[in-house]
Order: sequence, then structure tokens, then C-alpha cells
Amino acid sequence: MMPADSPASRRTFLAASGMAAAHVWVPTGANGYTPEEMRERVSTTGISKWELDTPALCVDLDALEANIATMQSRLAAKGLGARPHAKTHKSADIARKQLAAGALGICTSKVSEAEALMAAGIDRICMTTTNPSASKVRRAMALSRTSPHFIHAVDDEKNARDLADAARDAKLTANVVIDVAVGTRSGIPAGEGAVALAETISRLPQLRLRGLLSYDGGAQHITGFATRRTTALKNIEANAAVFEALKRKGLPTEIFSGGGTGTYNIQHEVPGFTDVQVGSYLFMDMQYLAIGNAEGGVVYDDFQRSLTVLATVLNNRFPGRLTTDAGAKALTLNVPRAGVVGEPGMDYNAGSDEFGVITYKQATKSYAIGDKLELVVPHCDPVVNLYDQIYGIRKDRVEVVWPITARGKSQ
Amino acid sequence: MMPADSPASRRTFLAASGMAAAHVWVPTGANGYTPEEMRERVSTTGISKWELDTPALCVDLDALEANIATMQSRLAAKGLGARPHAKTHKSADIARKQLAAGALGICTSKVSEAEALMAAGIDRICMTTTNPSASKVRRAMALSRTSPHFIHAVDDEKNARDLADAARDAKLTANVVIDVAVGTRSGIPAGEGAVALAETISRLPQLRLRGLLSYDGGAQHITGFATRRTTALKNIEANAAVFEALKRKGLPTEIFSGGGTGTYNIQHEVPGFTDVQVGSYLFMDMQYLAIGNAEGGVVYDDFQRSLTVLATVLNNRFPGRLTTDAGAKALTLNVPRAGVVGEPGMDYNAGSDEFGVITYKQATKSYAIGDKLELVVPHCDPVVNLYDQIYGIRKDRVEVVWPITARGKSQ
Repeated sequence: MMPADSPASRRTFLAASGMAAAHVWVPTGANGYTPEEMRERVSTTGISKWELDTPALCVDLDALEANIATMQSRLAAKGLGARPHAKTHKSADIARKQLAAGALGICTSKVSEAEALMAAGIDRICMTTTNPSASKVRRAMALSRTSPHFIHAVDDEKNARDLADAARDAKLTANVVIDVAVGTRSGIPAGEGAVALAETISRLPQLRLRGLLSYDGGAQHITGFATRRTTALKNIEANAAVFEALKRKGLPTEIFSGGGTGTYNIQHEVPGFTDVQVGSYLFMDMQYLAIGNAEGGVVYDDFQRSLTVLATVLNNRFPGRLTTDAGAKALTLNVPRAGVVGEPGMDYNAGSDEFGVITYKQATKSYAIGDKLELVVPHCDPVVNLYDQIYGIRKDRVEVVWPITARGKSQ
Repeated sequence: MMPADSPASRRTFLAASGMAAAHVWVPTGANGYTPEEMRERVSTTGISKWELDTPALCVDLDALEANIATMQSRLAAKGLGARPHAKTHKSADIARKQLAAGALGICTSKVSEAEALMAAGIDRICMTTTNPSASKVRRAMALSRTSPHFIHAVDDEKNARDLADAARDAKLTANVVIDVAVGTRSGIPAGEGAVALAETISRLPQLRLRGLLSYDGGAQHITGFATRRTTALKNIEANAAVFEALKRKGLPTEIFSGGGTGTYNIQHEVPGFTDVQVGSYLFMDMQYLAIGNAEGGVVYDDFQRSLTVLATVLNNRFPGRLTTDAGAKALTLNVPRAGVVGEPGMDYNAGSDEFGVITYKQATKSYAIGDKLELVVPHCDPVVNLYDQIYGIRKDRVEVVWPITARGKSQ
């Protein structure tokens, strides 16, 4: 039996029956949805987000689409491209939206992440981490075989030679960029060694050098725009010198990529910089909201907050306390604390594996067992990585359910 | 071509080819392995753990089996049963081992966890969290339909009546236990309200009251056995009074369950206690290792450390520092710090999403890019929940690959 015509009775019907709306978004087979994913789509599309079982990962589609458009146009206005990092969203569907908006390509941190996205049809992928083991060289080279656009990150001569050998065996020429360290975490230190590595790579006929990566993870979350700008520009000085040296030697520099959501409006000041590896701008989270904007505001509001986790109140019997069903397995980190939408007086502790504990002195209403709350996550990347799907919400209604294509792909 | 006969050449062959050992453990179709899981089994069974791509979640099978046997026999010696909590392992295979060793049943925190384990053949499941929404009542009652052994946790009269209605619609009698709070997190406060709830439930013909739960999450990690014992026994006093009141009123008390790895050797002092919801004893982690044992030792060594995450060195170029490929997405928490096996002088920081950063003054050797390290995880439950599979290792060789059956099932 189909639902009645009025929106209210249709909503009631859907809530009561758990059945699909009349117009269900039916995915094509191309993305390899499992039967469970298909059932989830059919049973939730069209319902109110407040009827979802919790914990549920939700993204507001209006805000997400606005963020993609805003980032693309602001970078373009400064002469830069976007090469969004999939480590944030791990979703082929969101990557497709970013590419459709004009992104140069998509970044991945891990080879398994690239495998999953490529299997779901995303082919312009640039790895930002090296693959130093023999097995991972094989896996990465298999991706070059699948797509001529795949780009390997290299920071070590032995690894470059291993990749060249694998490319020769695969009878192809593989794209590579050198990963030049900003700070001490990953990459070859900026300086003569980095230039020498680029020269070595340029002499290996199976590798095609495309340029360099210079990601400054440490600068992204610096509070206060002025300090963030000064630090980011100082940190990347030595990398800019490597870029200049490569250019002088006639080596390829068509890619000079790095930066992120925190420095997207700073990177154009780096001479030769080509594109920014933005990620969190899609969603925003408690960490990024707190870094402040370029106008001196304490809230970083260049992008809209689109990502939330829905939770249910399980216990309300102790004064000034609520227990929810969203703990560490739903939110990962507990620092900074998750935010409760509409309840600035609440402190949310996700320190337990299965439960969230809210303490408060003031709340806008009294909460019953079974009531739902919406949470802003502490840090988006590891939270998204916990969920099999994300509910795409428009005006509080589930419009689409996307699989987290590369969920758990940390290898 | 099959590998040669000698173990050494067979190992070399396997490492080089990524192919299967001659004797591959082939799972039956019953557990619903995906094609990807099947490939993982075939490609890794028989190889050295040091050849696994990283990050990889590993469990030492000798230690795991010893821990299961030790816990079972020590609880039995005190007249208690084990009702191990699957929130720790989320694995149908490990649950089967626990049941085979004599466990009374298996606990789950979330209904989706119970669904996944029951679909994989585990049927004696007791939920330890309530399901207050209409949708979750439906889902939980579907599990009662599948197995007459399924037990619902209830802490609220409305929820009890909703469950009774659902049981009537399903034409069955559902097992329930009342969840009585220890502390303020979940459950109905110990006292008259809890007794009244038990009486209400006992008058609902569709529900069969079995007893009560009293889990003291806060006591499990108290450092020092004496303090842990005193606190745990004091915290549960009011719950023990509820148990006595139910008994006096002739209400069912065949289940009086709670406790965990930290208090397994304390719970028998609670009059009427029946079984302990042990979880982490299987694996041990940095949190539990630090709580101290009953003999006054600073290391809690009642159980063997069996769980590790393998990681690969990605960067060794900065003095006193190493970068690995195991960050927050491989280890979740950063407090307490992960331990590096065999390198007590190393401090491991998993604060980055994709990278681990080791700082050290002393190391037993110098580490090259591509070298592997073994990590003891900060806290086992949320780490296991990140991985699709766990490698069962015996004498450093992969013997079995188990799916994490309920990975990500936090609803």
C-alpha cells in the first residue's frame, strides 16, 4: 500500500512502517552496494532525520554543497586549484561532487583508500603518503595500471627505484611527486637531498616526475589567523626554495600542492603553489570552528557546519546529567568536547566506549528517555571513518544514503 | 605453481608471490564472508605476521586461548559464571571460543551488535543497554523471535510496556533483566524504584523477568587492587540490596550480572552474584596493564597481553624521531600512550589521524624506512572496532583471519 498524498500522513506512514518513500533514490550497481546498504537506502530515504536509529552520521546537503562551491570559487579567485583530500570524507559520492565542481583531483593517504575509491569510479587520485613496502609498491602500481592519472608520493631513493622496477614490470610510466617535509613528520627534508631525489627520479625512465607535495599538518589548527598565516608561510619557506631549485634545473614543477582548510586562504602567497589539499571544509568540526577567521572572529565561519551525529537520551534520572548512546565508538576523540546543537550550556563527555555523558546547569527543555540530540563532532576525519554510511539530509529529511566507500581503509 | 617443501623456501615463495599456503583455512559459507574477506584469508594465511600490510590488527592465539581458559577456571573456582562482553571483541569466532570454554552467554551493548552476532550463529545473547525507541524495540524483538535465549535490558517502565506490546504482537514471551545503575551512567537507580520496576515487569505476561544487571564501569580501571576492591564492593551495596529485596518478594533473581576484567576476582564477594561480564581480559591493553594486580604488583598480569597493531616506519630522517603509518585511525585514543613492544624507551604519539610519531632517546636498534614495529594499544575496545579483520597469529605465523563481525555496529 502506498502512502497517502499529504506530506503529514505520508511521514506518519513512513515512520510507522519503516517503508520507502514513493521516490526512492535507487543507486546503480556500479558502486557495488551490499544488500545491507541497499536495504538501508530503501528503508530510510524520505524519512525525517529524527526518525533515524542512532548513533547516525548525518550531513546537511545544502551546507555541504555550499561549502564545495565556496572553496572552489575562493581558491580559483586566487589562482589556485583544489585537490581535496579524501581522508576526510572517504566517500566516492562526495569526491564526485568535488570533481564535478572543478577539483583537479582527489588525494588519498593510504593505498587501500585509493583502491576503494578507484573501484568506485574515482580515477584522478594523488597519494600523499609513501608506500615503502614491496607489497604496497605492488598494490600502488596496480592502481597505475588501472588509471594513467594515478600519482605516487615518493620521499626516498630506494622507494623510487622500487617503484621504477615495478613500473617496468607493469610496462607503464608512473606519475610521481616528491613528498617534501614541512616539519618532521613525513617526507624528505627540504634542501639539497630533496632536489637530488627529484633529479634521481627524473633520470628513471619508468617514472614521470610531476612536482612536489608540501603539507603542513601542524599549521592547520593554529588559533588566530595572523599567527596561522605567519607560521604557515615561514614553515614552507624551505619547500618554496626546493620548488625554485627544481624550476632552475628544468625539472617538472607542474604540481606544488599542500595546505588545507586552515590555510586555504594563505597558500596563494607561496610562489609557484598550484593547489590546496582541503578536507574538513566540507563538514567543519569543533577543532576547526575554534581556530578563528581572517576577520578576527573567534569562530572560523568561512564554511558552514554540515556534519552531525544524532544520539538518543538513554538516562535522565540524575539531576544535571543525561546519558546518551554516542560514546567513543561514535565520536572517537573527547578533546575538544563534542558540541550539542542548540544547547550551549551542555558539556558532552564521550570518554566511555558506548555512552556519552552530558552534564549541564542550563538546558532549553527537559529531556525524556528516547529523545534525540544532534552533536557537532570533535574532529571529523576519524569520526567519519567509524561509520558504514552517511545520511544526506535536506531540510531535515533523508535525501540520500551514501556508503563511506573507504571506511576503515587505513592500510 | 605450488611452493617448494622447505619452510624457508615456502616462506620466501609466499612473501614474493602473495599467494596462499598449501593448507589454507577455507571458511564455510555460513558466516557470510565477503569476496574481499575470502581473498584476505587466502592471501595471508600461513605467512609470517611481519609480512602483513600495515596497520594490521593481530592477536596471539596461544595467549588468547590461555586467557579464556584462565578466566573460565578462576571464575568457576569462586562459584561464578562468565558472560563475556562482545563489545570488546565484536567477533563471532571469539564468542564461539568463549562459549565452548563454558561461558553462560555473550553480552552486547547495542542491538546492531546483537543482530550481527546472531546472524553469525551466536544465539545466547544478553543485551546490557536498553532500546528505548520504537524502532529499536522492533529490532530487539526480532532477535527474540530468532532466539528464545535472547535477553533484553530494561530500566524504565514505559520501555517495559513497549517491549511487552511488541512481544504480544510477536506472539512470544521475551526474557528481560532490569539494568540497575551503579553510579549515574545507565540504568535505574538502585532502590525502591528498581524493585517496583521488577514488580511491574513480573506482572506483564509477555515478559519473563530473569534478574538484574549491575555493571560498574567506573571501578574497572581503578589503580591498585585494594582500592579497586573497596570501591567496587561499596558501589554495588545498594544493588545487592535490590537483589535481596527481589528475592524476598519471590521475584526471579537467577541472573545478577556485572563486573569486568578489573573486578573479576572481587565480584564473588557480592552475595547472590552469578556471572561476570568480562571483556578486555582476552587482549589486555595499556589501560588495564597499569591497574596493578592482587599481589601488589604494578602490572596487571593475571592475563597475557595478546593484542597488537603492526605498523611500518615511514620516516627515520630526524634524530630521535620515527614516523609510522598507525595514527588515530589505527589506534583511536592517545591516552594512555600506545606501547612499542621491545622498545621501552620509545614514546608513541597517535595524535595524528594517519601517522604515529615516536620520540626516543634510546632504542635497541636503528630503524630503516619500511621496518615494522608492534604496538600495544591504549584501550582495546574502540581499536578493535576500527578493523574489518583480525589476524590470528601462532608463533609469529598467520593461522587464521577472523572478520570483526560487529565492527562499527554502534546503533
